[in-house]
Amino acid sequence: MSSRDTTMRGGGYYDRHSRIQGSVLEPAAAVLARAAEAVSLPSSGPLVITDYGSATGRNSAEPVDLLVTAVRRRAERVLPVLVVHDDQPGNDFAALFSTLTGAESYLGAHDGVFACAVGRSFHEQILPEGFVHLGWSSAAAHWLSVPAAAAPGHLWAPRAPRALFAAHARRDWATFFRQRARELAPGGQLVLVVASADERGASGGDHVLDAVCDALTDLVARGALRGSERDRMTVPMYFRDDRELVEPFKDGELVLAEHSTAVAPDPLWLDYDRTRDAAAYGDAFSGWVRAFSEGALFSVLDLDRSPAERRALADETYAAVNAAVRANPAAFRCAWRLGILRLSRR
Amino acid sequence: MSSRDTTMRGGGYYDRHSRIQGSVLEPAAAVLARAAEAVSLPSSGPLVITDYGSATGRNSAEPVDLLVTAVRRRAERVLPVLVVHDDQPGNDFAALFSTLTGAESYLGAHDGVFACAVGRSFHEQILPEGFVHLGWSSAAAHWLSVPAAAAPGHLWAPRAPRALFAAHARRDWATFFRQRARELAPGGQLVLVVASADERGASGGDHVLDAVCDALTDLVARGALRGSERDRMTVPMYFRDDRELVEPFKDGELVLAEHSTAVAPDPLWLDYDRTRDAAAYGDAFSGWVRAFSEGALFSVLDLDRSPAERRALADETYAAVNAAVRANPAAFRCAWRLGILRLSRR
Repeated sequence: MSSRDTTMRGGGYYDRHSRIQGSVLEPAAAVLARAAEAVSLPSSGPLVITDYGSATGRNSAEPVDLLVTAVRRRAERVLPVLVVHDDQPGNDFAALFSTLTGAESYLGAHDGVFACAVGRSFHEQILPEGFVHLGWSSAAAHWLSVPAAAAPGHLWAPRAPRALFAAHARRDWATFFRQRARELAPGGQLVLVVASADERGASGGDHVLDAVCDALTDLVARGALRGSERDRMTVPMYFRDDRELVEPFKDGELVLAEHSTAVAPDPLWLDYDRTRDAAAYGDAFSGWVRAFSEGALFSVLDLDRSPAERRALADETYAAVNAAVRANPAAFRCAWRLGILRLSRR
Repeated sequence: MSSRDTTMRGGGYYDRHSRIQGSVLEPAAAVLARAAEAVSLPSSGPLVITDYGSATGRNSAEPVDLLVTAVRRRAERVLPVLVVHDDQPGNDFAALFSTLTGAESYLGAHDGVFACAVGRSFHEQILPEGFVHLGWSSAAAHWLSVPAAAAPGHLWAPRAPRALFAAHARRDWATFFRQRARELAPGGQLVLVVASADERGASGGDHVLDAVCDALTDLVARGALRGSERDRMTVPMYFRDDRELVEPFKDGELVLAEHSTAVAPDPLWLDYDRTRDAAAYGDAFSGWVRAFSEGALFSVLDLDRSPAERRALADETYAAVNAAVRANPAAFRCAWRLGILRLSRR
């Protein structure tokens, strides 16, 4: 478990602000199809698909649908399927189950498909040995296990010296795949999409917290936020370069079947480019940033802070982000470099 | 799915007010042990234990612990175990996962035990065919699938003519076991504990909503609650008598292995009897009643009611229950008649 609360606001807030995360599905679809071709089907019992870092499930419907359809085309019987959605214990599981019972759920689209949720960090083993046939993780495995408290004053890794976070990220990556190797059945397949860094260390989204950083500096200057609080704030993500991405697969039970890179489309920018509505872009961008960063940033405030104070500080911060985006939309466009991996379990 | 929200307040409220539900474990422990003896163990893969109607998981730790320990005594290998906690989509799953990651969780007590949650009514099939080895349901299966809208003005079945709810309850009971028969593996075992009725139709807890009923009548008399709202209010439970309990097992895939009755200890009354603290008893009793009834009762208010109004009406109702208990503690003592069933899947 993370020692800080890096999870999310409730009420489906993340769900409404995860279009960026959803945009990675397109480049991964062909890789998922190949995983569905390659997986060893179970001779009895259900095929188990696990979604690591599912958040509220909004971005899970499409890959699950794709995998179920492709796998059933191969199977002689109507293969029963169990889908496991995993995320941290503090995830908004109410929103997940609401998505799953809703009209657009994959549960309604297929007979014999069932779903469950696990509230446990994917840095741990979360399911029994050999239980999983198809694993999928999208825009999630770049989250580190514990915030790197060794880097005070650095809001996140992309704006800090790489070496400060690299060793931690390396350990996490090795652990992540050790756990997945346990959970995967022989012949199982795992597809991962993560934000990654090019040879110069750039992810195409390194700037997305810059306006947050400015806003926090402002709050400290005005005395509303304490410097010691700001120094503790970290969004614990690390975008690995290609060498780091493939390091765990030199030998061992997981074999690297494919590794490719892609640039994710930026759906928020595309909307802005079409409409030129800077206000809508500011709302969407600051909503997206808030959805993934608020928990990590504002849970580390001093213990004397009331819930209302925490809320007010966060409101001010993301309002400032919103204003910065409206003032200069082009500065916030993203071109996320994705690493797409397919692993086969021996 | 229930057409009304019959679930619960968040923040672990139910967890703190479910000691009555927990008190049924004691009479069921020996039956659970026999289920662990009788179950056909899987030759590969994990043993799956499913807890139907788990609520926030507080009362799940003990039976899971008992089953895991007993089953592992029989197995030659350290049998991996997957525990599935099922409840309605609106259940307080945040509290469930918090319980599961907490210090008293069975996850910490055993290696190789994993947990997941399903947010789907147990009146439906919630897991793949043959997936479950041991099923357990405690103080849950007496909830009906849909509130019996055909009985306007009757707050719940124990204070209404039995015939009004009997046909609905009969259909639900047949459906419940049809779904479980699908989910259970051959040689699987299912243990149920439900509140039940004696030959005169009495459950030993038929009176527990009387003070709620009085409070609602009062609110209607004062014009705070509309008569049409009160008439729609139902806590959809039905306490089956022995004949009704065993009706689905005349033939079919589930065989009745045991049927016994017990009277549950009343932990709230026992505390009162020891301390004579009527205020504490009033708090505990009204908290317990609120935890299981508020969702069913106050979700059916007219749509023009604001959240604050709904909350205020519920606050007033349960404050009146609290006062009634303090004024006459002895009138609220319960002696729940439990039906305990063990079923074997052919």
